[in-house]
Amino acid sequence: MSTRVAQKRNIPDGEGKVDWKKWKAERKQETQKWKESKLIKQLEKQRMREQKEKEKAELLQQQQLEKKNTGCPYTVSIALPGSVLDNAQSPELRTYLAGQIARACAVFCVDEVVVFDEQGEDAKSVEGEFKGVGKRGQACVQLARILQYLECPQYLRKSFFPKHQDLQFAGLLNPLDSPHHMRMDEEAAFREGVVLDRPCKAGKGSFVNCGMRKEVQIDKQLQAGLRVTVQLKKNQNSGTKCKGIVVPPHVPRTEAGLYWGYSVRLASCLSAVLTECPFKEGYDLTIGTSERGKNSDEITVSPFRHMLVVFGGLAGLEASVEADTQLDVSDPSLLFDLYLNTCPGQGSRTIRTEEAILISLSSLQPKIKAAFPCASTQ
Amino acid sequence: MSTRVAQKRNIPDGEGKVDWKKWKAERKQETQKWKESKLIKQLEKQRMREQKEKEKAELLQQQQLEKKNTGCPYTVSIALPGSVLDNAQSPELRTYLAGQIARACAVFCVDEVVVFDEQGEDAKSVEGEFKGVGKRGQACVQLARILQYLECPQYLRKSFFPKHQDLQFAGLLNPLDSPHHMRMDEEAAFREGVVLDRPCKAGKGSFVNCGMRKEVQIDKQLQAGLRVTVQLKKNQNSGTKCKGIVVPPHVPRTEAGLYWGYSVRLASCLSAVLTECPFKEGYDLTIGTSERGKNSDEITVSPFRHMLVVFGGLAGLEASVEADTQLDVSDPSLLFDLYLNTCPGQGSRTIRTEEAILISLSSLQPKIKAAFPCASTQ
Ligand SMILES: C[S@@+](CC[C@H](N)C(=O)[O-])C[C@H]1O[C@@H](n2cnc3c(N)ncnc32)[C@H](O)[C@@H]1O
Ligand SMILES: C[S@@+](CC[C@H](N)C(=O)[O-])C[C@H]1O[C@@H](n2cnc3c(N)ncnc32)[C@H](O)[C@@H]1O
Repeated sequence: MSTRVAQKRNIPDGEGKVDWKKWKAERKQETQKWKESKLIKQLEKQRMREQKEKEKAELLQQQQLEKKNTGCPYTVSIALPGSVLDNAQSPELRTYLAGQIARACAVFCVDEVVVFDEQGEDAKSVEGEFKGVGKRGQACVQLARILQYLECPQYLRKSFFPKHQDLQFAGLLNPLDSPHHMRMDEEAAFREGVVLDRPCKAGKGSFVNCGMRKEVQIDKQLQAGLRVTVQLKKNQNSGTKCKGIVVPPHVPRTEAGLYWGYSVRLASCLSAVLTECPFKEGYDLTIGTSERGKNSDEITVSPFRHMLVVFGGLAGLEASVEADTQLDVSDPSLLFDLYLNTCPGQGSRTIRTEEAILISLSSLQPKIKAAFPCASTQ
Repeated sequence: MSTRVAQKRNIPDGEGKVDWKKWKAERKQETQKWKESKLIKQLEKQRMREQKEKEKAELLQQQQLEKKNTGCPYTVSIALPGSVLDNAQSPELRTYLAGQIARACAVFCVDEVVVFDEQGEDAKSVEGEFKGVGKRGQACVQLARILQYLECPQYLRKSFFPKHQDLQFAGLLNPLDSPHHMRMDEEAAFREGVVLDRPCKAGKGSFVNCGMRKEVQIDKQLQAGLRVTVQLKKNQNSGTKCKGIVVPPHVPRTEAGLYWGYSVRLASCLSAVLTECPFKEGYDLTIGTSERGKNSDEITVSPFRHMLVVFGGLAGLEASVEADTQLDVSDPSLLFDLYLNTCPGQGSRTIRTEEAILISLSSLQPKIKAAFPCASTQ
């Protein structure tokens, strides 16, 4: 809607005689005025446009700066044996227990969960469909699958999780409600999506379902069915199309400080948790947990890049160390940089692994925050 | 066995003539010597007896002193709405959820759990059989009952928990494994027991089932069916009877620093949690919990006698405050000494109450410990 109001001109009426000369002069003057005012408005508009452009650039710059400051410069991984599921007393509770672990990871912004085989020797870990860990690893595979299922935004689940027995009781699972699980109309800088099997014009990229009313057109042409992280262009409410660019999945965390879910990895034994680290620098702060560890109140944490916190199963980390043919040590404390009791003075003889995860991450949280006073997550 | 060896005397042989005078003198001397040695031994014995007595007294005194030091001088209570059970998706999970709360309390040595009615107005809380909270309070009563059931040592359950629908799925519950849940042959200074319906001789007290092979005879004559805390006399392995004295249930905690389970209380609304405090001094440190609270990393805790930590349900403490006709305020933070966010930077939009209990108590634990540097629990 234009805000310009039409000017009313002095049209001569039928009563008095017309002084055409005067009328003409007046008209000329008016036209002049009108032209001037039009020019002024145009100039004003131009100035405002420039001003806006400038502000936008400043904002962007500031945001970039802020992103640098609010990005999260570290990762937290946890590892636990899949056998914890075998302690559950029914298939429903088995599923629920897996859900408790997923929730604990989301609440404490865990970036990677490693599920290891506590008894495994010949078992081998395989990415993706988790076919590699054999029969003994049944619990490992199921735990990993449920963890992946819960991490996946709801709108993508039917693309990535076909019906499977492991997910039979998935309806009982509490949602993670993490920031990358967007509602349909939520404004967001990033979204997870799946590449659609619908061609764009050649060289025009691909369409992605990001759980919005509109599909998103991305810059790259990618294989249909891929899961991608999309950075959405700003202010797309008015347009008819949505546009975005594909970014590595760590970008929401490293640049915007958003918690962006976890990846899941299977390991065939405890030592494989450490040796098959996906970060090329490796884990630079490894923590084992045990009631026989050092009181965690007494430690401080130095800045790190990739922290790993390892939990045992029913029989503790001793059992995992003993079953691991790759390890000569029998004392698990020798495997880690720190071996911590995160619940000194516990009033129960034994803390369950799913409880220990919440307790330990809660106890480590202030120490992590203290190591990175400038960074913030979520 | 005596260590005294019979002295060999110089009996005259048949060969030479006896010099009776010499013999007599020698004998006299020997007798004298023997008498002296006997006296010395007696004196030595006496001295040793005195020494032992003294050592024993010292030890006792030291133990008393140590008891004073290792006793726990404070209590921790938590309160939560019974409605949390209504978030569970099946009767089995409802039971499991109650069990999670009980476990969290045991792990963090909680002394009292208050279950309040989040919506209740006309409901009234009643001790014992929990008949007072009406239909709306169904979840409250069930939560309270399961909490009580789990707190009760296994060997006493059939005395105190008749079959009840609320306990239908009790078989799914994980045990608390707290120190007052003794195994049969465990040596212990204290035990929970139930007074038996078997008369002692008049004035000889009562018999109590403390979950041992033998019944325990206590000093007081008490009504059959009462639950009592018994302090057992030392070194009773050899005897045929066990003896003990009845002590107040706080004694294992206040004198020996043992975690001794929790009591359960129902409250008809949030304000009743505070006004119906069972400690005559009242709660002197009250903490509300919310994601909108102050960052708990930033606070310290001063010594207190009775701490209370209050949790909200699905809709947070705001909902409980709003439903409470006894309260004019609408901002829950005004009700408490501290209003804390115990999980700053949470990676899930919402933390469930059962998770928040573990997280919050874990986060408060080092602050409590710091307030009581000399005390130790468990
Ligand atoms: C059921 S517990 C293992 C108990 C086993 N009996 C032991 O002695 O280690 C399972 C896991 O929970 C964790 N955990 C239990 N208590 C802990 C504590 N006080 N501090 C840190 N981690 C603990 C450890 O990772 C442990 O391996
Ligand atoms: C499901 S949450 C309530 C969420 C509700 N929407 C709110 O905004 O308060 C249930 C309870 O968990 C506890 N809780 C959740 N997040 C918390 C946090 N970050 N810090 C402390 N307590 C928290 C509070 O006691 C809360 O009432």
